[in-house]
Amino acid sequence: MTDLRIAVLGVGLMGADHVDRITNKISGARVAAVSDRSPQRAHAVAHNIEGCQIVDDPFDAIASTEIDAVILSTPGEAHEKQVHACLDHRKPVLCEKPLTTEASSALGIVEREAGLGIRLIQVGFMRRFDHEYIQLESLLTSGQIGQPLLAHCIHRNRVPGPNFTSESLITDSLVHEADVTRFLFKEEITTVQIIKPTASAGAPPGLQDPQIALFRTESGRHIDVEVFVGTGVGYEVRTEVVGEFGSATIGHDVGLIKTGAPGTWGGNLTPTFLERFSQAYTDQLQRWVNAIRKGPTTGDFTDGPTAADGYAAAAVCSAAKQSLRTGQPVEIVPPTHETCR
Amino acid sequence: MTDLRIAVLGVGLMGADHVDRITNKISGARVAAVSDRSPQRAHAVAHNIEGCQIVDDPFDAIASTEIDAVILSTPGEAHEKQVHACLDHRKPVLCEKPLTTEASSALGIVEREAGLGIRLIQVGFMRRFDHEYIQLESLLTSGQIGQPLLAHCIHRNRVPGPNFTSESLITDSLVHEADVTRFLFKEEITTVQIIKPTASAGAPPGLQDPQIALFRTESGRHIDVEVFVGTGVGYEVRTEVVGEFGSATIGHDVGLIKTGAPGTWGGNLTPTFLERFSQAYTDQLQRWVNAIRKGPTTGDFTDGPTAADGYAAAAVCSAAKQSLRTGQPVEIVPPTHETCR
Amino acid sequence: MTDLRIAVLGVGLMGADHVDRITNKISGARVAAVSDRSPQRAHAVAHNIEGCQIVDDPFDAIASTEIDAVILSTPGEAHEKQVHACLDHRKPVLCEKPLTTEASSALGIVEREAGLGIRLIQVGFMRRFDHEYIQLESLLTSGQIGQPLLAHCIHRNRVPGPNFTSESLITDSLVHEADVTRFLFKEEITTVQIIKPTASAGAPPGLQDPQIALFRTESGRHIDVEVFVGTGVGYEVRTEVVGEFGSATIGHDVGLIKTGAPGTWGGNLTPTFLERFSQAYTDQLQRWVNAIRKGPTTGDFTDGPTAADGYAAAAVCSAAKQSLRTGQPVEIVPPTHETCR
Amino acid sequence: MTDLRIAVLGVGLMGADHVDRITNKISGARVAAVSDRSPQRAHAVAHNIEGCQIVDDPFDAIASTEIDAVILSTPGEAHEKQVHACLDHRKPVLCEKPLTTEASSALGIVEREAGLGIRLIQVGFMRRFDHEYIQLESLLTSGQIGQPLLAHCIHRNRVPGPNFTSESLITDSLVHEADVTRFLFKEEITTVQIIKPTASAGAPPGLQDPQIALFRTESGRHIDVEVFVGTGVGYEVRTEVVGEFGSATIGHDVGLIKTGAPGTWGGNLTPTFLERFSQAYTDQLQRWVNAIRKGPTTGDFTDGPTAADGYAAAAVCSAAKQSLRTGQPVEIVPPTHETCR
Repeated sequence: MTDLRIAVLGVGLMGADHVDRITNKISGARVAAVSDRSPQRAHAVAHNIEGCQIVDDPFDAIASTEIDAVILSTPGEAHEKQVHACLDHRKPVLCEKPLTTEASSALGIVEREAGLGIRLIQVGFMRRFDHEYIQLESLLTSGQIGQPLLAHCIHRNRVPGPNFTSESLITDSLVHEADVTRFLFKEEITTVQIIKPTASAGAPPGLQDPQIALFRTESGRHIDVEVFVGTGVGYEVRTEVVGEFGSATIGHDVGLIKTGAPGTWGGNLTPTFLERFSQAYTDQLQRWVNAIRKGPTTGDFTDGPTAADGYAAAAVCSAAKQSLRTGQPVEIVPPTHETCR
Repeated sequence: MTDLRIAVLGVGLMGADHVDRITNKISGARVAAVSDRSPQRAHAVAHNIEGCQIVDDPFDAIASTEIDAVILSTPGEAHEKQVHACLDHRKPVLCEKPLTTEASSALGIVEREAGLGIRLIQVGFMRRFDHEYIQLESLLTSGQIGQPLLAHCIHRNRVPGPNFTSESLITDSLVHEADVTRFLFKEEITTVQIIKPTASAGAPPGLQDPQIALFRTESGRHIDVEVFVGTGVGYEVRTEVVGEFGSATIGHDVGLIKTGAPGTWGGNLTPTFLERFSQAYTDQLQRWVNAIRKGPTTGDFTDGPTAADGYAAAAVCSAAKQSLRTGQPVEIVPPTHETCR
Repeated sequence: MTDLRIAVLGVGLMGADHVDRITNKISGARVAAVSDRSPQRAHAVAHNIEGCQIVDDPFDAIASTEIDAVILSTPGEAHEKQVHACLDHRKPVLCEKPLTTEASSALGIVEREAGLGIRLIQVGFMRRFDHEYIQLESLLTSGQIGQPLLAHCIHRNRVPGPNFTSESLITDSLVHEADVTRFLFKEEITTVQIIKPTASAGAPPGLQDPQIALFRTESGRHIDVEVFVGTGVGYEVRTEVVGEFGSATIGHDVGLIKTGAPGTWGGNLTPTFLERFSQAYTDQLQRWVNAIRKGPTTGDFTDGPTAADGYAAAAVCSAAKQSLRTGQPVEIVPPTHETCR
Repeated sequence: MTDLRIAVLGVGLMGADHVDRITNKISGARVAAVSDRSPQRAHAVAHNIEGCQIVDDPFDAIASTEIDAVILSTPGEAHEKQVHACLDHRKPVLCEKPLTTEASSALGIVEREAGLGIRLIQVGFMRRFDHEYIQLESLLTSGQIGQPLLAHCIHRNRVPGPNFTSESLITDSLVHEADVTRFLFKEEITTVQIIKPTASAGAPPGLQDPQIALFRTESGRHIDVEVFVGTGVGYEVRTEVVGEFGSATIGHDVGLIKTGAPGTWGGNLTPTFLERFSQAYTDQLQRWVNAIRKGPTTGDFTDGPTAADGYAAAAVCSAAKQSLRTGQPVEIVPPTHETCR
């Protein structure tokens, strides 16, 4: 079977990483086209890849008969139209989070895809492919520690991304924890509250960093999340789930343990999400490629989080942004479309 | 110098442990009297100790010229009168938490002691003597990780105590975290909120277990506390403090690490607070005994948390009990007496 | 560029894993032929792979113009002739350890390849691709902990392989530690001694399990290795290197940490080498494939341990087998051919 | 009951620590006399302690009717005569290791004490009182991991003591591992070998540091020990025991875990044995004091390692010193006196 021809739209940090992974690590696929609003960036990524075109207009790539599938790593604002174009042309699409920037537009996409009768959209919540999260989910499913009652989540970055606003902590970081909560607890988040402690002296003026988010689920479970994007230390993502008969924690970044400085022992932390979740990114891509190649027989061109998952996370983030302004708990309007449940 | 003669009032689990420690592990002191509402219990504890009397009325022991200092491990409701009696007779007293059951009566004690011009009251917040908490406080004081911004606290017991109510999680467990917060952050807690997630299926009917407490301090720092007294697993107390330039965690109960069951590794947890905080209990007692022996020259018969600390923790607990009923954040009325600051 | 066509000779546990990895995880290569002394096993592995032939005689596959590169996962006794055949036909070959079963035949291969003026042979010491070993090697190279003085290695399996003999502990397990020692210390092992403690009651009759191996290097460094293949527990591989100014350890298998059984905490161990070194196996294959595709321009069809590395490890194992019989330290004859240094 | 009157002979680092512990932490005992070859040192230790005499001649203190028990923290060369004097006067004695400097003189003491029909001598192998070693011994006794087959021991100091020779690594450090081996394996060490790797560049000229010791026990178990006294890092003592059905490790020095420096996590090591084994030293003393007070009824004035344990460790050290010279394994002559078994 010939390799799947993938268009990668948007080749910033994340998109360039996808291109590299497909080219050098993934079986059964190649990058056939890239597009970026910066022609230089597109060229830099594409020029070494045999048979990879640079396309000015991302919609041309989506429509092209020489493209089998699409990865959207464009800015979130561009996703809505691009995903709809993928649906127009029946192209499988791996859309980086967020699916769209607002819950309503995300819901529109969910409903449209449901009407097509085939599943084309996968959302890039890569943690569902991380070995540690998979182990944790399996443990919960096994019933060994009973029903999950609580979760404590930590999400820390060394430095905030460029142009990070207080809302970015929600749309870039908290969004993952919203999806992880749904993945682990198997139910919807119904209320979210953002608590704003005194900001770190190291935070840029006006940036509310850290933030604490509180989730409550349908059946009354409690999840708290620390988001702190400017610790100066490293990338730390940890989750502890507390069940009726025990608890479990993932994310202790242990590899090399050394002593050396007088009186101390320790090790290194992963600097960014790319090192921490490298295994997850690779597995996400490989399984997506494999699913697409089987898609014509299964009617499902995805193997991972769906558009409905993308919508649910977007709905949590919309409510969280409202709570960021008011400081009050905000209820999340339950999805009206049955495909979301 | 002859041994300090101590009366231990109340010899349940905690009081009996104090008696044993003084008799078998502490230098410079002996148990000269015990009292308990159960004569059998008093007899069981006292009969093997040379020169130890059983006293029916605890106030007789407090008044006795043959008693140099008093330990109160009676029920919390009895503390107010007994502490006042100790002040009446100028007897140094180590009072188990809570100092009193309500903030107002605790404040009365603070003001009365302040009027005496000597310090006689120490409150049994033993965690301040635990090596790990001491290390954590030193780290914060050193400035290595900057100002503390957040803390995440875990307080788990294997099984709830007898007659535990939803309020007991606050007065028996959360009270320690209130004191630890003040010890580490060096400021007062100004708001507390109790969140009530779905109770564990293993909790007795009507017991709200687990509970989540949120503290906010004067300068806007955030502390969250999980209190879960019926995990079925063991005694787990952990604290992570997040500062501007780093974080630090204590309470990982590592000793023996073993593999054995196919495919697994692990270790043992301490079953109760007595094993976990044994070193702290011993140091608390020894330092208290040493301070009393020096007291006549220093005017300070304590080496540890003061009546003001006991009042502050009581004020947090009063507010937390109110929040347990309403679910809303409750402000803590600032202490009116200068001795509390 | 079309995919590299690989013949996998020998499709037992290891060979079948290579086939699966190439087919489902590796970019730029496909399995074009398999061969096995068991036709059923060859069929089971090959029948689902598009364009994969079953070849009766492995030498036909090596000679075929439709094969670009060869993986040898045949029994060690078969390697010598098969590697020579690969050299005859100038086929890049990834040879599972051991390169050959005796040092002398391994040296013959090294000399022959050296004479060809191109590098065609890579030996499957996959640990050199493991992230933890790479971190450890980097730390040593950085000089942060000074010159390495000692290493303590642990190599444990849950159960011995089928037909395992006392020599198998050397040729299957210790061989990896010999290579790791050379990789980390950057010098040759000059003496080896096998110590035979009382065998485990769980070992099959006649199997010397565990064994302790002692290595001494050219400059007098000391390495000790525990090999214990029947622990009943899991796959545990750990290495601690002690340098002049500090030490470093890898192999603490931490992922999910849970509490659950009353009084205990712990986690899971990887059951076998396939789970523990999955990332290393994938990277080994992908980098080998990439190197072969660039080989015509570089003259080097390998990216990893060479035939000389295979010879050096074989020399250590030959001496270790002699020590297993005598109990005495055995010197390792230094390689006569300059290509080995 | 009045306090036990103890003479502490030799008040260097270890002796001064015993004095402080008895005075400030131990119930039922006081320091009634100290002696040291340095009068200044004796004065510095004694002058603050009520009722503590300074004695010029240690034998006077041993003979005094105002002394109930003796602690020997004098240099090892002085122990033989002083222990005999304690036996002469029927004084319970806690003798720091080594019991004597040679196996033969230690055996003489064992035989003499056996002839008295009461047990007066305890040897200061404090690790037997350390909570972690106790847990490890309990695990082995429980049979959970089967018979112990192997042990790997690490003994590291930050800097060598003053006047440390290559033999000091054996008599000061390895001696503890010899006793620990006997404590855990419940059998005698029959062969010892010292391996001399290249010395650390940081070692003083002529000091063989590190050293590797290999023990073999009566039934053929294997123990290896790394002794490295100049790591520059901290005090690290770890033991892993490998049993037939599992393994167990102690000595992972975990307390405060922090992140802070960019990209790293870690914690502090204990700097010296006094911090690492503080709990063990206190328990050793308290239990010894308690045993002496009960001695007249039990005939046993000890609660811990006996003279026979001291002899056995001395025999291992004598053999180890011989092996240090020859590099060959040395057999340990089995004790001739039945009291040693």
